[in-house]
Amino acid sequence: MAGSSFGECFRVSTFGESHGPAIGCIIDGCPPGMPLAPEDIQGDLDRRRPGQSRHTTQRQEKDQVEILSGVFEGVTTGTPIGLLIRNTDQRSQDYSKIKDLFRPGHADYTYLQKYGLRDYRGGGRSSARETATRVAAGAVARKFLKDRLGMEILAWMAQMGTVKAQSFDAAEISKNDFFCPDASAAEQMAEFLDALRKEGDSIGARVDARVTGMPTGLGEPVFDRLEADIAKAMMSINAVKAVAMGDGFDVVEQRGSQHGDALTPDGFLSNHAGGVLGGISSGQNLTLSVAIKPTSSIRIPRQSIDIHGLPQEVVTTGRHDPCVGIRAVPIVEAMLALTLMDHWMRQRAQNGDVQSPLPPISA
Amino acid sequence: MAGSSFGECFRVSTFGESHGPAIGCIIDGCPPGMPLAPEDIQGDLDRRRPGQSRHTTQRQEKDQVEILSGVFEGVTTGTPIGLLIRNTDQRSQDYSKIKDLFRPGHADYTYLQKYGLRDYRGGGRSSARETATRVAAGAVARKFLKDRLGMEILAWMAQMGTVKAQSFDAAEISKNDFFCPDASAAEQMAEFLDALRKEGDSIGARVDARVTGMPTGLGEPVFDRLEADIAKAMMSINAVKAVAMGDGFDVVEQRGSQHGDALTPDGFLSNHAGGVLGGISSGQNLTLSVAIKPTSSIRIPRQSIDIHGLPQEVVTTGRHDPCVGIRAVPIVEAMLALTLMDHWMRQRAQNGDVQSPLPPISA
Amino acid sequence: MAGSSFGECFRVSTFGESHGPAIGCIIDGCPPGMPLAPEDIQGDLDRRRPGQSRHTTQRQEKDQVEILSGVFEGVTTGTPIGLLIRNTDQRSQDYSKIKDLFRPGHADYTYLQKYGLRDYRGGGRSSARETATRVAAGAVARKFLKDRLGMEILAWMAQMGTVKAQSFDAAEISKNDFFCPDASAAEQMAEFLDALRKEGDSIGARVDARVTGMPTGLGEPVFDRLEADIAKAMMSINAVKAVAMGDGFDVVEQRGSQHGDALTPDGFLSNHAGGVLGGISSGQNLTLSVAIKPTSSIRIPRQSIDIHGLPQEVVTTGRHDPCVGIRAVPIVEAMLALTLMDHWMRQRAQNGDVQSPLPPISA
Amino acid sequence: MAGSSFGECFRVSTFGESHGPAIGCIIDGCPPGMPLAPEDIQGDLDRRRPGQSRHTTQRQEKDQVEILSGVFEGVTTGTPIGLLIRNTDQRSQDYSKIKDLFRPGHADYTYLQKYGLRDYRGGGRSSARETATRVAAGAVARKFLKDRLGMEILAWMAQMGTVKAQSFDAAEISKNDFFCPDASAAEQMAEFLDALRKEGDSIGARVDARVTGMPTGLGEPVFDRLEADIAKAMMSINAVKAVAMGDGFDVVEQRGSQHGDALTPDGFLSNHAGGVLGGISSGQNLTLSVAIKPTSSIRIPRQSIDIHGLPQEVVTTGRHDPCVGIRAVPIVEAMLALTLMDHWMRQRAQNGDVQSPLPPISA
Repeated sequence: MAGSSFGECFRVSTFGESHGPAIGCIIDGCPPGMPLAPEDIQGDLDRRRPGQSRHTTQRQEKDQVEILSGVFEGVTTGTPIGLLIRNTDQRSQDYSKIKDLFRPGHADYTYLQKYGLRDYRGGGRSSARETATRVAAGAVARKFLKDRLGMEILAWMAQMGTVKAQSFDAAEISKNDFFCPDASAAEQMAEFLDALRKEGDSIGARVDARVTGMPTGLGEPVFDRLEADIAKAMMSINAVKAVAMGDGFDVVEQRGSQHGDALTPDGFLSNHAGGVLGGISSGQNLTLSVAIKPTSSIRIPRQSIDIHGLPQEVVTTGRHDPCVGIRAVPIVEAMLALTLMDHWMRQRAQNGDVQSPLPPISA
Repeated sequence: MAGSSFGECFRVSTFGESHGPAIGCIIDGCPPGMPLAPEDIQGDLDRRRPGQSRHTTQRQEKDQVEILSGVFEGVTTGTPIGLLIRNTDQRSQDYSKIKDLFRPGHADYTYLQKYGLRDYRGGGRSSARETATRVAAGAVARKFLKDRLGMEILAWMAQMGTVKAQSFDAAEISKNDFFCPDASAAEQMAEFLDALRKEGDSIGARVDARVTGMPTGLGEPVFDRLEADIAKAMMSINAVKAVAMGDGFDVVEQRGSQHGDALTPDGFLSNHAGGVLGGISSGQNLTLSVAIKPTSSIRIPRQSIDIHGLPQEVVTTGRHDPCVGIRAVPIVEAMLALTLMDHWMRQRAQNGDVQSPLPPISA
Repeated sequence: MAGSSFGECFRVSTFGESHGPAIGCIIDGCPPGMPLAPEDIQGDLDRRRPGQSRHTTQRQEKDQVEILSGVFEGVTTGTPIGLLIRNTDQRSQDYSKIKDLFRPGHADYTYLQKYGLRDYRGGGRSSARETATRVAAGAVARKFLKDRLGMEILAWMAQMGTVKAQSFDAAEISKNDFFCPDASAAEQMAEFLDALRKEGDSIGARVDARVTGMPTGLGEPVFDRLEADIAKAMMSINAVKAVAMGDGFDVVEQRGSQHGDALTPDGFLSNHAGGVLGGISSGQNLTLSVAIKPTSSIRIPRQSIDIHGLPQEVVTTGRHDPCVGIRAVPIVEAMLALTLMDHWMRQRAQNGDVQSPLPPISA
Repeated sequence: MAGSSFGECFRVSTFGESHGPAIGCIIDGCPPGMPLAPEDIQGDLDRRRPGQSRHTTQRQEKDQVEILSGVFEGVTTGTPIGLLIRNTDQRSQDYSKIKDLFRPGHADYTYLQKYGLRDYRGGGRSSARETATRVAAGAVARKFLKDRLGMEILAWMAQMGTVKAQSFDAAEISKNDFFCPDASAAEQMAEFLDALRKEGDSIGARVDARVTGMPTGLGEPVFDRLEADIAKAMMSINAVKAVAMGDGFDVVEQRGSQHGDALTPDGFLSNHAGGVLGGISSGQNLTLSVAIKPTSSIRIPRQSIDIHGLPQEVVTTGRHDPCVGIRAVPIVEAMLALTLMDHWMRQRAQNGDVQSPLPPISA
């Protein structure tokens, strides 16, 4: 109801503000018997962690995760997994200047209107800091999906401003500061961001993702279609403004004869649908894109008002990401993992013993 | 869990197949004391109804709604509202030919894989017929939002194939067969569809929408952001493949200095955000776009397989929409109404007595 | 949220008032592939139906169920099952006299306070008429539990007023008008009720139940313990005021050495627990009791007020059950079926492939 | 789904095992603007805390609560409240002896059957230790209910074994080790428990409770009746086996003319119903009773089996409560607080602006 939980069977509930003592989450419903150690989670956390390069915020958070429950002798027990991450590098004084101001494009304004008060330090609950808990929970889901079901989730920076990845080399993604599959585009992104930081501005991005090893049958008609829950998961990430599955907005100009993916005994001949038909996974790869807006915390002065309704100029200093799209990459992966894990369990609840009459085809 | 319910406070649960005896829904949680009669619902149903022009399927369904409960002496009582629509024009025999086949791009394949069997008549539960119940429930929400809160929801055909609406005249939307705000574009759409029907093909579309009279404060951080639940609502509509809020995918190339909507004592100076900041409504108009794929039921022969895994050519006869985007317009409105109504109630549950310290500004 | 749904995986949503055109429900989440016909449901409905003997209300409802969706070629498809029962024997005029009055012990008062208005005809939504939809949905769950899992649910009248069943013969339950397992007690109940009806009064009852063929592992720690959800299910039935599992209130005076059921390789030696340990089913029979209050619609004059707050004498004529406990028997069974079905599916979602290290013991 | 969350609007999710590093919870949905400090919570925690007298387990837990989020400058912000309690006095070695055994009457057996493995140290998740988090969350709800709505919740030891409280002095409850309202009965309980401890046995108890200052209108027909959710809340407490509202099982022998509480312009003349009619609060005091079984961890040897299915004698040493009913008293209060808070918010979501036509009467 109040929005800090995600999933029905594999249910993650999160808490924590940017400048409070800690952030964390509870995973309720994890299947028992899966080996789990902090290092299974730490890897994904480190990928999202700020301060990894000059291109992200210089806040230094170790993001060290503590498993508080749900694991016994190295194995999940089926009871709730409590995860805790202490905040260690807050500089709340940075925020005293904007205590009474609204940054254009920021949740400052809407939180105050909704709750009548707000924790202004670092954006409080609206800070991207909260996403660390999603990445931690996502790592647990991801391990299950990979180890038990053979599913692999991969996201990458497809475009930053007008710089697009022109080629795709999966191995390259982990080698540059941008999760970009094109080394040469990554170099252009670096140059572009260096210039942008000097100007004190920020930039949008597009993150693409795919999931391989998909089972058929995930997704619940009619409201909880797999695409619908993925769209929600993606749009729940800070700064995401659009989500597209498969061919996305290109379908507007497509004809049915062109869009429908033909089937043969050896599998589908194309994947315009992005791996979902009628809201249910077809076994093809999931493919999707999300659009991420430029961060609203910039040094360039802008016109705004204060909490008394008076006009003010706003300048945000402090440590901010010039392109939140970079650190969004592991968050997209985490939210995909949570969505798929949940739907796999939902499918098992109702259809755990279904046998399809159709012989297996290559997807 | 099994996906046929939407909303938490204003909760709609639907049932029904294309060729069963009836479809219907239950609305649980409607506030008491609202005048409600079948004619309040019938208007929206008629806009979605097939067979209104030569450009949609010629199936003749009267879509007459019966209110079975929850209304006493013309007023809602707060108890569940049961709505029933009998199916009257099924031609199940049309489907015997595709009983054992999978239409490329259709849910035929995934339903069978998920459930091990399927109701092949007219797509069964995957048919757009199901959306009539959403429109019926949406009409109830819409009436409350308008009469009690002054909110107005409007959607329209913005693009069909390559034909775009070039101008916007709200009054024009109800005057042509396409819900198109540009009379001249509507004429081009008519010509285009006439040709397409002869070819036996189908076409995609883009539907845009806006909501005026928005209150501030709707949307729950962090997973149930207003945009996240709108994205889910939109992507839960048959054939929708992409959703964009505000500037949508254009934000990828925008800078923070350009994207952030400046605030003045007289209100916001622009609306790149589409009315939502940090997942919470800002009071500005909601603006959004959805992409709708071309229907997969076309007469042009395509390559596929049958339920034995053998290669087959598929041709779909029967009565189908060449552009499902047309009838999607009232469905987009209905799903927006359901989402907003639910979030308004959720906001009231937690924050019913919140007073914002900020004096009202024009949104 | 508004309370007319039950269950998470096997989710039943109901609608309908005593004197509206119809009542009904949607079952969302039923596993596919189960044979289902109206007659599978009608049997249970007939047991709950009024007017079966002189000892229940003389309202004549045929309670004929129509399956509107979710079944194709005689088999469930996994999509929502819509069930409809038309109301046929309403005499709304009977209620005009109590339109503005509150019957002592009745929901008249609280519905008006909650919603600001009420459907006074026959109790509206608070009428036991609503339970017909529970029995219909319960019959579907029960069939699955029995046919697929071998579980059998049985409830009976254990006590009416001071008349107690002194012996237990399961075969006798269906042979008398009271679902009483003791033929001689049933005779006393008949005499007692005949006298009570003349006085215009009503009487309370205790209904006991057991479930055999229980699997181990049903129930979710810590809040959704099997007992907790059973207690909720039972207490959600009109007029139920108390619920006891196993030894119930007798445990207050028991010692641990006496209460704990000893285990042997051949199974448990006793069943004080009623089949649940730590909130999870042990495989032993479930045993429980519920207390049902005397109906508040009686002919004996009582002191009350009207909606203007003025003192009034209230006399309820019309057709009412002198002991609602009789017709509660099949409702208790239905609610047990719904609870168990839901928990079985929940268990499968998380633990579908768990292998217990313990060799099977006799339960 | 997996059962570690309670409530819909005021939603509490808990985690933690008896012998893990910590236990804790998240409260999602707390209204903003309420002053909250650790000491508001600590008082209730201290009442539940073990080791307060010789009559409860001698485990020494400080149960010191840390507020990790959701409070800013001493006031709730409306975002999730994270609460953490470190475990400090575990003696896991005490449990090595029962690692492979099942204590009769204990969750040992069912956890292993459900999950295929178990954390045997101190009962793991099935330990009453988990209830500390309920008490912490309940304290937050209770403060809101009292400060904002004037509701007061009180529970007490009504009976331990055969020793019953014969008189009721609310002020006495906090003065003895048993939360007993009758000083003389408390003395008898002390003597009785001293003897029982020597025998190594345990005993059951009855805890009664009442809520004063109740508003009308709480409770959702038909499944989420206030009594139904209270029954669930109570039965979700470790060791509770029965729940009764108002007159409870006494209604079985009551007549309608006796049970129905007469209404006058000055209020109700009696309270057989226990404050709920038709599942909705009437404004009268809530009254209820719960039965608590004797703990299954006793020193007296009993017959059982081990995880290989072989017969074994079980003796539980370690530090255990001879009467878990004592520490259940604050837990009953906490669960009542959570249930009422949640229903108050649910009522506001749907009926926040309802005006009853009936002039206020004294309840």
